[in-house]
Amino acid sequence: MDCRIIKSPGENTMAILNRRKSSKEKLDKPDAIGLVQGKLIEMICATDVAEKAVGVTIEDIRGSCPQNMILLAIFGDTASVVAAIEEIKRREKNNEW
Amino acid sequence: MDCRIIKSPGENTMAILNRRKSSKEKLDKPDAIGLVQGKLIEMICATDVAEKAVGVTIEDIRGSCPQNMILLAIFGDTASVVAAIEEIKRREKNNEW
Amino acid sequence: MDCRIIKSPGENTMAILNRRKSSKEKLDKPDAIGLVQGKLIEMICATDVAEKAVGVTIEDIRGSCPQNMILLAIFGDTASVVAAIEEIKRREKNNEW
Amino acid sequence: MDCRIIKSPGENTMAILNRRKSSKEKLDKPDAIGLVQGKLIEMICATDVAEKAVGVTIEDIRGSCPQNMILLAIFGDTASVVAAIEEIKRREKNNEW
Amino acid sequence: MDCRIIKSPGENTMAILNRRKSSKEKLDKPDAIGLVQGKLIEMICATDVAEKAVGVTIEDIRGSCPQNMILLAIFGDTASVVAAIEEIKRREKNNEW
Amino acid sequence: MDCRIIKSPGENTMAILNRRKSSKEKLDKPDAIGLVQGKLIEMICATDVAEKAVGVTIEDIRGSCPQNMILLAIFGDTASVVAAIEEIKRREKNNEW
Repeated sequence: MDCRIIKSPGENTMAILNRRKSSKEKLDKPDAIGLVQGKLIEMICATDVAEKAVGVTIEDIRGSCPQNMILLAIFGDTASVVAAIEEIKRREKNNEW
Repeated sequence: MDCRIIKSPGENTMAILNRRKSSKEKLDKPDAIGLVQGKLIEMICATDVAEKAVGVTIEDIRGSCPQNMILLAIFGDTASVVAAIEEIKRREKNNEW
Repeated sequence: MDCRIIKSPGENTMAILNRRKSSKEKLDKPDAIGLVQGKLIEMICATDVAEKAVGVTIEDIRGSCPQNMILLAIFGDTASVVAAIEEIKRREKNNEW
Repeated sequence: MDCRIIKSPGENTMAILNRRKSSKEKLDKPDAIGLVQGKLIEMICATDVAEKAVGVTIEDIRGSCPQNMILLAIFGDTASVVAAIEEIKRREKNNEW
Repeated sequence: MDCRIIKSPGENTMAILNRRKSSKEKLDKPDAIGLVQGKLIEMICATDVAEKAVGVTIEDIRGSCPQNMILLAIFGDTASVVAAIEEIKRREKNNEW
Repeated sequence: MDCRIIKSPGENTMAILNRRKSSKEKLDKPDAIGLVQGKLIEMICATDVAEKAVGVTIEDIRGSCPQNMILLAIFGDTASVVAAIEEIKRREKNNEW
């Protein structure tokens, strides 16, 4: 799994995510975005970890034809996003799925 | 094949699975979800093993364009899901297909 | 090529195959199913071998987006399915295409 | 590139090819079928070699989602199909494109 | 990530980019185009870097079925495009995401 | 990148290219066709090189699902096509993009 954090995302970045997310509501610009990319089975486990964290919203993002890949986007204030990403990394490292 | 178990799945996790499953009925939140990812031929054999186990429901989950991949989701009480996943792993290890 | 045999297939297994096969008629549950997965060129040769065997019916199964892959499913009584799969393996081993 | 020849193709084999070819006319059963699988750029060169051979008809066959892959099917009497496949192999071996 | 710069792009080049970009407005020919290709997660981070640079416009370009790949096109005067590409390369090199 | 030249292309070869090109006009049979296959970012740079050459017409050709791949077809008299392909190869070799 590949994890990254964008602080104060710009408008084009939000536009690309809005164009490719599964849910319909337009997202407001958050303080930070956490991104997680991996195999479908990993993304579903990461989603479950992230949504048990506090203060974040989760979206799955499609590429144009992302095979068994989805990108998970975690929106929220910077501290919450960092905490959610850290927990996902910790679970992966310890193979705690 | 890659196998994982999610206990007490959250709402976003259920939403992602509901959005991508082949059958139409909305799934109720189960105690646990077993996930199995592999080649199409492996998934069909794993489906057959899982459905001969007791106390579980089976769904095949599509990625956006999962090539020859499908993800198998096994729903049920925790003990039944663990038993089904263990049987799939045992069959794969012993090449008993 | 990857070959497997499922004896007395369950209902979910039949449902997954019925959902993904190219022809329209719903298949009755056979005694056994032979599965063969490989490149498109290999599958077409395997189809030709299988249909010259006796007592089996053949279907090509799509994944959601199986690239150049199709899965060949061979339905029939157990002895006929085993014989067809053995002949496919023998031809592949001896490179008799 | 991967090349194979099927002699006296069966009905299922013809049905799979008929379902996946680009042109619309239904093909009659030929004496033999030559199959060539490779990258799109190779297939276009192989098409040009095959159509300058005598006594064969050419079709490009799609997989369900064959990426940059197409399968070339060469129909005709056995000697003509063998000659066309041999010429494609010779050109590839000598890198005469 | 793979980065390239085209100076004084020709009409066919603009036509290919116009045919494959996500937004609808036809682009005017810029002085230069910066191109960045990589994984979806990298492209989203690169978009965020590029749009915080000055004097450039950003488009995401689809291949026909680019899996988890998109191509980022950065339009503007030559100096601005070069500066945006340099900043993306610097961030990648220092792993400053 | 993979580059090839077809001299005096046959009708089937033209038909495959006509079926898969992005623009709508039917192409007349040229003296020669240059083919270039590579990653989307490479193809866009190659397009720009080719269209600054003289005496050639350019088309991008889709595979059935060519991921981030397109095939570039360069039509014209033999000398012009050879010159355009040589310039593309020279630029790639010297990394002059």
